[in-house]
Amino acid sequence: MSGDRLIYMPLGGAGEIGMNAYVYGYGKPGEERLILVDIGVTFPDMDGTPGVDLIMADVSWLVERLDRLEAVFITHAHEDHVGAVGHLYETLGAPKIVARAFTANIARGKLDEYGVGPDAVTVASPWPETTKAGPFSIGFLPISHSIPESSALVIDTPAGRVIHSGDFKLDPTPLVGEAFDPDLWAEVAKPGVRALVCDSTNVFSPQPGRSEASLGEEITKLVAAQPGMMVATTFASNVARVKTLAEAGVRAGRSVCLMGRAMRRMIEASIESGVLTDFPTVVSPEQANEIPRENLMLIVTGSQGERRAASAQLSRGKYLGIELKEGDTFLFSSKTIPGNERGVISIMNAFSEKDVDVVDDNGGLYHVSGHANRPDLVTMHQLVDPQMVVPMHGEHRHLREHAKLADELGRPGIVAVNGTMLDLSGNRPTVAEYVETGRRYLDGSVMIGAMDGIVRDRIRMALNGHVTVTVILDDEDEALGDPWCDIRGLSELGRSNAPLQDVLEEDLSQFLNRANRQTMSDDDKLEDALRRVVRQTSQDEIGKKPEVTVVISRVS
Amino acid sequence: MSGDRLIYMPLGGAGEIGMNAYVYGYGKPGEERLILVDIGVTFPDMDGTPGVDLIMADVSWLVERLDRLEAVFITHAHEDHVGAVGHLYETLGAPKIVARAFTANIARGKLDEYGVGPDAVTVASPWPETTKAGPFSIGFLPISHSIPESSALVIDTPAGRVIHSGDFKLDPTPLVGEAFDPDLWAEVAKPGVRALVCDSTNVFSPQPGRSEASLGEEITKLVAAQPGMMVATTFASNVARVKTLAEAGVRAGRSVCLMGRAMRRMIEASIESGVLTDFPTVVSPEQANEIPRENLMLIVTGSQGERRAASAQLSRGKYLGIELKEGDTFLFSSKTIPGNERGVISIMNAFSEKDVDVVDDNGGLYHVSGHANRPDLVTMHQLVDPQMVVPMHGEHRHLREHAKLADELGRPGIVAVNGTMLDLSGNRPTVAEYVETGRRYLDGSVMIGAMDGIVRDRIRMALNGHVTVTVILDDEDEALGDPWCDIRGLSELGRSNAPLQDVLEEDLSQFLNRANRQTMSDDDKLEDALRRVVRQTSQDEIGKKPEVTVVISRVS
Repeated sequence: MSGDRLIYMPLGGAGEIGMNAYVYGYGKPGEERLILVDIGVTFPDMDGTPGVDLIMADVSWLVERLDRLEAVFITHAHEDHVGAVGHLYETLGAPKIVARAFTANIARGKLDEYGVGPDAVTVASPWPETTKAGPFSIGFLPISHSIPESSALVIDTPAGRVIHSGDFKLDPTPLVGEAFDPDLWAEVAKPGVRALVCDSTNVFSPQPGRSEASLGEEITKLVAAQPGMMVATTFASNVARVKTLAEAGVRAGRSVCLMGRAMRRMIEASIESGVLTDFPTVVSPEQANEIPRENLMLIVTGSQGERRAASAQLSRGKYLGIELKEGDTFLFSSKTIPGNERGVISIMNAFSEKDVDVVDDNGGLYHVSGHANRPDLVTMHQLVDPQMVVPMHGEHRHLREHAKLADELGRPGIVAVNGTMLDLSGNRPTVAEYVETGRRYLDGSVMIGAMDGIVRDRIRMALNGHVTVTVILDDEDEALGDPWCDIRGLSELGRSNAPLQDVLEEDLSQFLNRANRQTMSDDDKLEDALRRVVRQTSQDEIGKKPEVTVVISRVS
Repeated sequence: MSGDRLIYMPLGGAGEIGMNAYVYGYGKPGEERLILVDIGVTFPDMDGTPGVDLIMADVSWLVERLDRLEAVFITHAHEDHVGAVGHLYETLGAPKIVARAFTANIARGKLDEYGVGPDAVTVASPWPETTKAGPFSIGFLPISHSIPESSALVIDTPAGRVIHSGDFKLDPTPLVGEAFDPDLWAEVAKPGVRALVCDSTNVFSPQPGRSEASLGEEITKLVAAQPGMMVATTFASNVARVKTLAEAGVRAGRSVCLMGRAMRRMIEASIESGVLTDFPTVVSPEQANEIPRENLMLIVTGSQGERRAASAQLSRGKYLGIELKEGDTFLFSSKTIPGNERGVISIMNAFSEKDVDVVDDNGGLYHVSGHANRPDLVTMHQLVDPQMVVPMHGEHRHLREHAKLADELGRPGIVAVNGTMLDLSGNRPTVAEYVETGRRYLDGSVMIGAMDGIVRDRIRMALNGHVTVTVILDDEDEALGDPWCDIRGLSELGRSNAPLQDVLEEDLSQFLNRANRQTMSDDDKLEDALRRVVRQTSQDEIGKKPEVTVVISRVS
């Protein structure tokens, strides 16, 4: 085996929170057999990705090496880990996909949208069962998180054992799914662990994490105390939270109604896959309409302020026959992810206008995080006691802080952002290579590249507006009639107090009248010149330089 | 005087945080003499106002009544209170503007940009001096805030005394500007106060506010402990904070350098207007280049992540000759305003990549708010003991909560959002009228309306992309050559694996070949039909329906 190496390379998820995709390889340099851990998405925003539907890792590096890809393992069913499985399945050469039952259920739903049957996903049982994949043997080691059946991966290789933590917290009472079992983890760690590749999300949170079970009492008290309809939102995938909320409703004598497609889908998947066995009976929105509001508890999607989810719909007015009003209470049993504040606040104000009382997580009273805080990371490092620590699942600042923490605890850590190929074969992680990586966008029904200028053009039109210039020339290169402008996204009136369109057309006409034959006969030159006229005149008139499309037609 | 009434109406600032503009009036209904308190701006974002430069209140209601406007009073120099004074000065008929010295200095700077001389602003001394304005007598009552010389207004009217709080906190040691003086306030309140119109920003903050002076010790410790260059950002207008930071630098033996135009402008204005007398000597960026990094303290603009401010520039690389590196420390002595998280986090990560340590407010250790928290509001209500409370300066949820608080304390409160005209003449506030209000945008060099579709068109282009279609027809309504498409912000390849442009042009050609004479001869009909073809084909090919500009040229 001499000359073989063990490599690790994030294609997504390291240097950002989202679109997780981690490659492991073992073999001779350049000939390693590969596995991919997770294949997630991240979400677009108006600032940088207007009009985009979903963002995922650019997997070109893998696509060029599909003959070496053994399988894809999915740690859990959050969108940033499983969300791209349908979109990239064909691109990745229809690979074997391995996941535990609940995750497999969700993955199959996504593959089904692309006409891929359920057999594409192999359901794995938890550790000590393992799956062979080339030189790798992979086991799903249960760990608590904010979704059922989240798992770390025990990746055994000829170079030793790697533990890929997945997303996790150390929760002895997660309510749904397996509790964190330190004895089991100690046993797995006992033979020695070469590398711990570890979630970094909450490295800046100084207090130990709290258990999901710590919320039940306060949520129950809150729900019982409300005089009107009770509505609560949380991540649909946080099945334990949904259960806690539902049980609080039942205890308060309320009928429970789930609203939002994702909410119903997640509960179905939990029941189908056996992770959820004792969820209260629910009523449909139609039935809910017939129930007195003080006897009703809605659990709804849209905790991040998403415009089309149930929370936002309810904040705007009647939704599925239900309308909130004075005396009702809306609970955000969730934390707002940075960047989503505007949407969430807008919902809060819309409810305020309806005289609906809004309750947020109240400093943690009604929400706990699904990620390990700094002291929990220390516990994990000590429990697994790896030879080296590779921080993942975090922005650069999280990875850097986590690597420093590992160093402080006496184990070498390293910051490896997307595209950094690490060699884990030695005594400490070393950079083997930097690979070009990036993002791909699902845009409508097609995939586009982040760097190919399409979205950049949209942003420019949003910032600068757009002018279309049409000029018709005859076979003598003389203008046939006047040039025509069509403006979009720009003030109609400018400094001259005349319509901007008229001023532009006048200036373009004058330009055409004095343009020399050389310019008039050369489409590229003429286009450049006309664009300059439009931008200069617009700048003078309205103080903006628009994007310009010039159409030159030559008729004979 | 029977039949006269006292009215209050926010045109901006109530139902939002930003662009404050409050109208007071006294007289016969419909003939009230008016004053305007504050004339601020709010800032655009990509989500709702791409390409816009500044947002301000639509003052049309006032413009239609300029003969009744006595004067404009400005409480303090924050942009959301004074920012529109230059942009709207002419629109408001060049009114008399009254402010205290520091605020006047800033306002004059803004008016100067519009060629308006300093005499436009009358400098007022603090209470007990008052300014007459029609039936009103107005005094500037000092109150602490996060900017020097912030003032409440004591508005005496024939119907009694109104106190307009302005933005405030109860700070006995604000370091720069006057301390909150409860005895003075009690004296002003003693004759009886009809209405307290009151800042609501922090009504959801349960703990009493902390003094600006509480930060000095911790900031000094932090600055002294850093091995490399120390850089701190805060709001430039928070002159007390800038001073605290500068003094911490000096105590640590560091030369202090201010970076960013706003930072220098604010310190200059403070010194010119006499509110700041003992600011440490500063060095220029050029001089700073010659000073060993461990002896340097930069105080810079851009605490909210603004792309062009000094913080962001430094995070991207060398700025004014200075480049941060490993061992340097960057302090956010500030809170991130909701909506600005992405920009701030992006700066944090950029510094992390440079191995620069970033310190945030650390749970309040390095930052205090400038607004009164809930217990401080209670203190204020009790101290002023008004007949009624009108919450202002807040989103709907803040106004509602503040009105509830007033009611709980035994004084009638009311939620009055922008455009709600209140009659304050009776025993409790009542709604006299609802007036249409809105926003105007400074867009490049022109003002545009929020509702006139210009920005909506930009957003649509950003979401959907844009296609220009050009068709040339002869005098028989027959197409001269083929139609031409120009696409912008859309995938070049679609489902057919042919260029989208080609597919569109082919479909448009086919349409033109089979279109009937009636369609071909009617520009509107033809335009509609061609737009439909483009949208349908694009939907089929790439799953998006673009914005379409159709240019039909008829030549003979």
